[in-house]
Amino acid sequence: MRMKAVIRYDGTHFSGYQIQPNVRTVQEELEKVLQKIHKGQFVRVHASGRTDQGVHAMGQVIHFDTDLSIPTEKWEQALNTMLPADIEVLQVSNVYDHFHARYDVKEKEYRYIIVQGKRRDLFRRHYVYCTPHQLDVKAMQEACHILEGTHDFSSFCGSNNNQQDDKVRTITEAWIDRDEDEFIFRVRGTGFLYNMVRIIVGTLLEIGRGERLPEELETILQVKNRIYAGDTAPAQGLYLWEVFYE
Amino acid sequence: MRMKAVIRYDGTHFSGYQIQPNVRTVQEELEKVLQKIHKGQFVRVHASGRTDQGVHAMGQVIHFDTDLSIPTEKWEQALNTMLPADIEVLQVSNVYDHFHARYDVKEKEYRYIIVQGKRRDLFRRHYVYCTPHQLDVKAMQEACHILEGTHDFSSFCGSNNNQQDDKVRTITEAWIDRDEDEFIFRVRGTGFLYNMVRIIVGTLLEIGRGERLPEELETILQVKNRIYAGDTAPAQGLYLWEVFYE
Repeated sequence: MRMKAVIRYDGTHFSGYQIQPNVRTVQEELEKVLQKIHKGQFVRVHASGRTDQGVHAMGQVIHFDTDLSIPTEKWEQALNTMLPADIEVLQVSNVYDHFHARYDVKEKEYRYIIVQGKRRDLFRRHYVYCTPHQLDVKAMQEACHILEGTHDFSSFCGSNNNQQDDKVRTITEAWIDRDEDEFIFRVRGTGFLYNMVRIIVGTLLEIGRGERLPEELETILQVKNRIYAGDTAPAQGLYLWEVFYE
Repeated sequence: MRMKAVIRYDGTHFSGYQIQPNVRTVQEELEKVLQKIHKGQFVRVHASGRTDQGVHAMGQVIHFDTDLSIPTEKWEQALNTMLPADIEVLQVSNVYDHFHARYDVKEKEYRYIIVQGKRRDLFRRHYVYCTPHQLDVKAMQEACHILEGTHDFSSFCGSNNNQQDDKVRTITEAWIDRDEDEFIFRVRGTGFLYNMVRIIVGTLLEIGRGERLPEELETILQVKNRIYAGDTAPAQGLYLWEVFYE
């Protein structure tokens, strides 16, 4: 029986989603708990994709297979009782046998939270990116508009992912909202390259500070070279917000 | 030269304010940094009072003595550069030689944040207290009113502090505000007993849930016995908000 679960996690104390030796990862915590529930039998967990160290998730999706006949509400309860305080299962459902959390993704939404203020907010230091600079939200909105559509995003791809040949991706929606001192960047697309959202945010910040014009984004896309985009924005402001399936 | 500083800290990863062997405390971090600034010479830090493990501060006040002639803005900078990310100095000023951060306190304000919701907010688990119960804010407000004034608060004193004989304290203001699902309890007074605010909040929660009537607070005050008050509310919702001097 294949189970799908929507989970959220605080990425602060994880070395990312994906399992790796000698560090704490979300995947390992999930698999450890499932192994306990299955009385020692290993259960592989598949996610919609990985998230990096310090990146949070509000709606990560995973799937796993089980022989146990536990009602879905009990699954949620059992997992939440056994999982550490920084991972939470929001919903568990029974899906058809060919559902795949990664291969069946239709779109993903990420959000990035920026707080503008002279002082960084001590209590949100792991959850937002603080900047002392004034940001021109209108210029940033213009830039968002240029990002929408199908483009080769080579300029917005971190160097860890050189093996990926095709860097054409489609952003269906990109926009930025301002609520007093808080700026929320939301981006929805069919696929994202390594560090793509964080490099986009780093570039938007330069535009917001007036160091670049919004239309420079067009040139940056055209040159297909990482060095022309802005810095990679820090991990702690980024959230994998929602994963969409058919 | 005596310096006064207003500081804030995230209490999550501290075993409280006061220095103790083998655990991480706010006082030790402050004294370590001051010792470095004074080239190895120990500098004692005095605070307005201690805070317990997990309790936060938005406006704790400390004082220390120094021979160094550093301008006040440089003090702020130097301290913030060297302090860990969960302590921040908001303001440093030069005060008269007899100022004392603890003895000269006129009033203190504490706040306690409660969030009502079916699910606890994963990202605020260290910063608020989450309850799934509906709370009657009007009943809680009535109870706050009863607390105001000068009373013997023996019923609201944690057992760690039995050596304190006089348990008469004055609460100058106690009120609770609701903002959607968030309840903020604010209390201002000339002095507080050990765990007093958390026991008051625990009792207010019972009143908010309808398990007790607001007027029972009068009886609880009269009996002067800790067992008649509510549970001690968890540390993570509590903030030492502001300390007032002459």
